[in-house]
Amino acid sequence: MAQKPSIPKGTRDFSPSEVSKRNYIFDVIRKHFHTFGFQPIETPSFENSETLLGKYGDEGDRLIFKILNSGDFISKVDDVTYSSKNSNTIAPKITEKALRYDLTVPFARYVVMHQNEIDFPFKRYQIQPVWRADRPQKGRFREFFQCDADVVGSTSLLQEVELVQLYDAVFTDLKLPGVNIKLNNRKILAGIAEVIGAKHLLVDFTVALDKLDKIGKEGVIKEMLSKGITESAIEKASPLFTMSGSNGDQLNTLKKLLVDSEEGSRGVEELEFILRSIAELGLQSAKLSIDVTLARGLNYYTGAIFEVSAPEGVQMGSIGGGGRYDDLTGIFGLKDVSGVGISFGLDRIYLVLDELNLFPEAIGQSLQVLCVNFGEQEAMASLKLVTQLRKAGVTADVYPSDTKMQKQMKYANNRDIPFVILIGGKELENQSFVVKDMKKGDQTTYRFDQLEEFIASLG
Amino acid sequence: MAQKPSIPKGTRDFSPSEVSKRNYIFDVIRKHFHTFGFQPIETPSFENSETLLGKYGDEGDRLIFKILNSGDFISKVDDVTYSSKNSNTIAPKITEKALRYDLTVPFARYVVMHQNEIDFPFKRYQIQPVWRADRPQKGRFREFFQCDADVVGSTSLLQEVELVQLYDAVFTDLKLPGVNIKLNNRKILAGIAEVIGAKHLLVDFTVALDKLDKIGKEGVIKEMLSKGITESAIEKASPLFTMSGSNGDQLNTLKKLLVDSEEGSRGVEELEFILRSIAELGLQSAKLSIDVTLARGLNYYTGAIFEVSAPEGVQMGSIGGGGRYDDLTGIFGLKDVSGVGISFGLDRIYLVLDELNLFPEAIGQSLQVLCVNFGEQEAMASLKLVTQLRKAGVTADVYPSDTKMQKQMKYANNRDIPFVILIGGKELENQSFVVKDMKKGDQTTYRFDQLEEFIASLG
Repeated sequence: MAQKPSIPKGTRDFSPSEVSKRNYIFDVIRKHFHTFGFQPIETPSFENSETLLGKYGDEGDRLIFKILNSGDFISKVDDVTYSSKNSNTIAPKITEKALRYDLTVPFARYVVMHQNEIDFPFKRYQIQPVWRADRPQKGRFREFFQCDADVVGSTSLLQEVELVQLYDAVFTDLKLPGVNIKLNNRKILAGIAEVIGAKHLLVDFTVALDKLDKIGKEGVIKEMLSKGITESAIEKASPLFTMSGSNGDQLNTLKKLLVDSEEGSRGVEELEFILRSIAELGLQSAKLSIDVTLARGLNYYTGAIFEVSAPEGVQMGSIGGGGRYDDLTGIFGLKDVSGVGISFGLDRIYLVLDELNLFPEAIGQSLQVLCVNFGEQEAMASLKLVTQLRKAGVTADVYPSDTKMQKQMKYANNRDIPFVILIGGKELENQSFVVKDMKKGDQTTYRFDQLEEFIASLG
Repeated sequence: MAQKPSIPKGTRDFSPSEVSKRNYIFDVIRKHFHTFGFQPIETPSFENSETLLGKYGDEGDRLIFKILNSGDFISKVDDVTYSSKNSNTIAPKITEKALRYDLTVPFARYVVMHQNEIDFPFKRYQIQPVWRADRPQKGRFREFFQCDADVVGSTSLLQEVELVQLYDAVFTDLKLPGVNIKLNNRKILAGIAEVIGAKHLLVDFTVALDKLDKIGKEGVIKEMLSKGITESAIEKASPLFTMSGSNGDQLNTLKKLLVDSEEGSRGVEELEFILRSIAELGLQSAKLSIDVTLARGLNYYTGAIFEVSAPEGVQMGSIGGGGRYDDLTGIFGLKDVSGVGISFGLDRIYLVLDELNLFPEAIGQSLQVLCVNFGEQEAMASLKLVTQLRKAGVTADVYPSDTKMQKQMKYANNRDIPFVILIGGKELENQSFVVKDMKKGDQTTYRFDQLEEFIASLG
């Protein structure tokens, strides 16, 4: 008996309309990656296990998909390990490869392996799927695409400025105005922890601060106290809880607060440079604002931290994020390569554009012209016409069999095809074709030698 | 100690120039898939094991990459199986998912699962990677892309005609003239086996005939004899060994040979229809020729069989192939859906274009304009200029730090950047910029407000 097919949980089939919409987003992002001077690379879907394991923490290791060795894999397991029946110790004996978990570690591996071919600073982008054995839930998948742009080999803050411009260029082009690019700096967070005397509690402090949005000032204070941050320390940090006003006002508050911290003051200077440069260059449609509560994988970033949120009124987490990290390639033996990068959250951007109805209408249109099939001779004449249309870049097709006209018209309707061409016996005799505009309902007759006119009418 | 990184055997990193060349091929193929009315779908990288296993024969099953279950996978193996220490029986207990082996089976699965959303005939294309645990060798990889276009739900021979046109359109656009589209039909092979009295030896017969190119007439006859095909049968089939002349001549030979086989005669009619239609429609640059020795996975195809070989003089196996199959979706319970499809061999097409130097020159050019960085103020003026250039679609960048001019020029040279812009203190004062043409070596000075002129000069 034939099996009823299904797909693994957490994975998706993409229909033609979904692929087209996704490709629209990819194409816009890719276009701006290019104009900003980023170059594409691609890495294999699976890496040697030792390349990936240990890079994402214990939880990450658990979420990495491992590929079973081919052939008689069991024979490679020694007896002691085998008799332990312990999945954790057996797994490394029967798997050597694992599916990519993100694009950052493979990129670091690429830079180290190809360092002699690369001209630094190296601006690379990468748009590829990644896989995580996460529990699937709404909006969280086991296979999804990441779109990353990173610069390695330069500590210049101009990169941060450009990355803000890049976000602005992409979201402006996607006709998604009003996204909010939030900016922070790890050095500011470290400086604050320092001046309030909680340097050793930096992570606890920022994790709590990060929740200001959700649990409010009271909640944050409660959590900080529970982590052992003193009341007087919290009191010193209190300006953070009520930071508001323009970026300039907030910078002034931070400057005062951090006047005694060298690291913190450096963070403020970096922030100020980025804000001043962007003010001078201007943004097309995005906003740039300081958000000192922004932490994002704090242990990873060493300088600027970015996060992009959807325009006000759209309920959606961040649609992009990134930051500067000082030692990406160190894990693979290449020291002192600073990097900074951002990523675009494809799935969420898709949902936002869909919700706001921002996908261009033409995307859904898979076929501009369909010729009705009235029989072998007529179909051949239609195919001749269609061949010319295709050469002119028009998406066109002939219905493959001469079934009932009604059925063919229903097909054209279902597929939302705007123009149907009719070449029956009479038209064949007159060397002409009839174009039916499916929206307006009217018909126009052209001679075969007037095809250019019809093409021009398509615009 | 940091590990020295490597990638799994049979996989590849793609550098910016390789990705750009590959994308060029993909873009050309995709463009014509669209104009021919094919719609894109995408399926998950891994499928449930039962979707894939048993579909590609025993050898195929061995070459499918299996994904280890997450968590305590060993606990799901019963004691009897575990104590067998047999990899073949343990594997199904510890893996539920497997990496896609081709695009055809996932497509069949897709059609069956989504049959109620699909308007048939359904023309779909799919460009995605597949994975095979094959022994890696020159030109054979464990991860590679397939580019497939298929039509399901129509038995019309117009599809076959269009697929020949599609090959012609793509290879013409790739500026690869003279590819040879070879055409055969399973019914002809079956008919020949029938009339020579070797119907029960069809596979042995065609496998031997398929080698005519390599081992010659003598070799083929020897192999046929060894498989039990009688001398008199081989004698009857002898016109096949020397078939030559025009397609018309060959059709006549086949007609005579197959006059007593209903199936064979039908095959000849189908062949004739395709040839006649293509003769009427014309091809742009490809040749279409009968090749009765062409078999390709015979047990799969039921009608037309296609194979494309590179232009004469290029040593390369087939760069494309396909055919008609009558019951693709039957394995998943949907009967009577005929399909026909072709695929493009990306890696080989890449090698051919590279060998013949047919990639457009502009592909290697990742950046059109680089601004030299002379310091903070100058860099900001440069970035303003670059922002305008990027908005106009020019790929442009500012060197991120004000290191020695020599180093920056070397970077521009290494990256083959055609134009370098210089904005130093003097230019800043004059509100002007100097453009150095790196090929010609000459310099032109523009005022900032003449930027449009410079952009226009880029063409």
